[in-house]
Amino acid sequence: MKKATGRVKPGPMIAVTMGDPAGIGPEICLKALNAPDIQKLGRVFIIGKGSILQKNTKPAGVTAKRLRPVTEKELKDFKPGRGFIHYLDQKNISADDPKPGQPSQATGQAAVEFLERSVALWKDGLISGVVTAPISKTAVKAAGFKFPGHTEYFAKKTGTKKYAMLFDSPELKVILATVHLPLKDIFKEITTQRIFDCLEMGADYLAKLGVKNPRMAVAGLNPHAGEGGLLGREEIEIIAPAMEEARAEGLNVTGPVSPDIVFQKALKKEFDLVVALYHDQALIPLKLKSFEKAVNVTVGLPLIRTSVAHGTAFDIAGQGCADPGSLIAAIKLAARLVSK
Amino acid sequence: MKKATGRVKPGPMIAVTMGDPAGIGPEICLKALNAPDIQKLGRVFIIGKGSILQKNTKPAGVTAKRLRPVTEKELKDFKPGRGFIHYLDQKNISADDPKPGQPSQATGQAAVEFLERSVALWKDGLISGVVTAPISKTAVKAAGFKFPGHTEYFAKKTGTKKYAMLFDSPELKVILATVHLPLKDIFKEITTQRIFDCLEMGADYLAKLGVKNPRMAVAGLNPHAGEGGLLGREEIEIIAPAMEEARAEGLNVTGPVSPDIVFQKALKKEFDLVVALYHDQALIPLKLKSFEKAVNVTVGLPLIRTSVAHGTAFDIAGQGCADPGSLIAAIKLAARLVSK
Repeated sequence: MKKATGRVKPGPMIAVTMGDPAGIGPEICLKALNAPDIQKLGRVFIIGKGSILQKNTKPAGVTAKRLRPVTEKELKDFKPGRGFIHYLDQKNISADDPKPGQPSQATGQAAVEFLERSVALWKDGLISGVVTAPISKTAVKAAGFKFPGHTEYFAKKTGTKKYAMLFDSPELKVILATVHLPLKDIFKEITTQRIFDCLEMGADYLAKLGVKNPRMAVAGLNPHAGEGGLLGREEIEIIAPAMEEARAEGLNVTGPVSPDIVFQKALKKEFDLVVALYHDQALIPLKLKSFEKAVNVTVGLPLIRTSVAHGTAFDIAGQGCADPGSLIAAIKLAARLVSK
Repeated sequence: MKKATGRVKPGPMIAVTMGDPAGIGPEICLKALNAPDIQKLGRVFIIGKGSILQKNTKPAGVTAKRLRPVTEKELKDFKPGRGFIHYLDQKNISADDPKPGQPSQATGQAAVEFLERSVALWKDGLISGVVTAPISKTAVKAAGFKFPGHTEYFAKKTGTKKYAMLFDSPELKVILATVHLPLKDIFKEITTQRIFDCLEMGADYLAKLGVKNPRMAVAGLNPHAGEGGLLGREEIEIIAPAMEEARAEGLNVTGPVSPDIVFQKALKKEFDLVVALYHDQALIPLKLKSFEKAVNVTVGLPLIRTSVAHGTAFDIAGQGCADPGSLIAAIKLAARLVSK
């Protein structure tokens, strides 16, 4: 794990932020922490509110007495007991009795406070990783949250300039050179430096997962990856130099590969990771091929941060039918990354 | 079928152009015309060269004596006999003895001549549809062919200004608002008029296939379809007005739908057709989901034109292992469209 300069090495604990209290967050947090795979990790707790979690024990199918609060003081050398679900209680949040499926400024505020607590714990060296349950963009915005999403929030709070969104799924791993920008605005952000940075962050990430000599591909920007300059020159002028630099650093990189071919090849395991240049180039194939199993990872941060790839699912909140699969995958991945 | 003004109604015959003689074209033409589904259509012949087709009978697994030349004169009231594979012989082409897998200016020239003959036959009212086997862009360019591909060639030769590339597969039908342009250049081509035209051509196409009250979707341009203007304004300023116009014409249209969701919805049969705004937005999902069964159709032309979606496959030419599935699908689709 990367160690922030001048800080103590953080403890191995992983915090799961409960997300919007009116969404499926509380339910999937309980279900996930109750899952045998997560129980046996012995290092996970929820940052949430006890009373809301208690109300969600029934839909989550968890006995209420298995919930155990943990204090910040206890976290230092904490060894969660098997059979329990531990949580750090944010007692004073305003969302006291949220109605499932009805987000508000108060639920947004609560979701933000869980995040802030996670950053504070990390700064105090009490946790190494944060796994985030989904928040409502509208609700957090109403509560004054100024970031497009979790990713940018953690980058800002940890003073990180070079970071990227990466999706990790069994079928496909994709790192994004640009994310939430109008398509017209991606061109000025897709630079040789940025593509090189993505390759470097991608290689670091794969190394943490134990992938030896990772094979990475860069998607082209234009149809047929520019067809030798006939359909655009970014492949020649911007992407190829980044790949040269990466090769000079000893990285095994291929491309630019035609955007409509690169994901097929990655699915056939010809590549361990694809650098995608814009949101939909990555998200169209991901959603078609492996989204239910995908974990959203922020790479480049000094802390480990993973997330479910889905949203708050207000339409099914409180009904007991929410699938904790993505959250379980996100916690397991965080644990793998933390232990390196 | 649309009737070109001042022309006689063309006969029901469908010509299959043989494509590059050094590619898999000759082999898949023979295999496709030998297939029971195509034989029973009773209206299909190849525009190719007899001697090259003869050489391909062995890899195609077809008895040489089943090949039958047909003359232009005979085409007028032609009823192909069952059990035979008919071809119009372009005797004088220069690619006399092409080596499989080795395209040249001569094979490119031959491929162009097959196309020119098909246009001439259509102008003479002898055929209604053309199905194209793959050509080599390099070879036809060497032979002086000035078009990016078949689509633009047929548009020019039939004097058509409003046309579009459409991919038809059992899983997904997609019409493209722009095709072979650098990504940077799509913005000026994605106009309200163009999107409306695509919806209109899409509706005409689905009507020909007998789809009642077709449900069409337009993909957004930006991430999350612009998220209400936060991530781009084209959805509001350009796409929405096109959809209003289409609704005023009585069309059932949805969107703009987030580009990373619209294809999933179409795959679940929520839509009969998707209007995609640029090459990779269409081709990434198509190649991942249904490319081996996809047929490339040019809509908007006064003649029916379909094509295989794959290329010349020079690496396997002459080996007998080429799959005629896409060509068979293209011929069957052309026959459905011709008969309307």
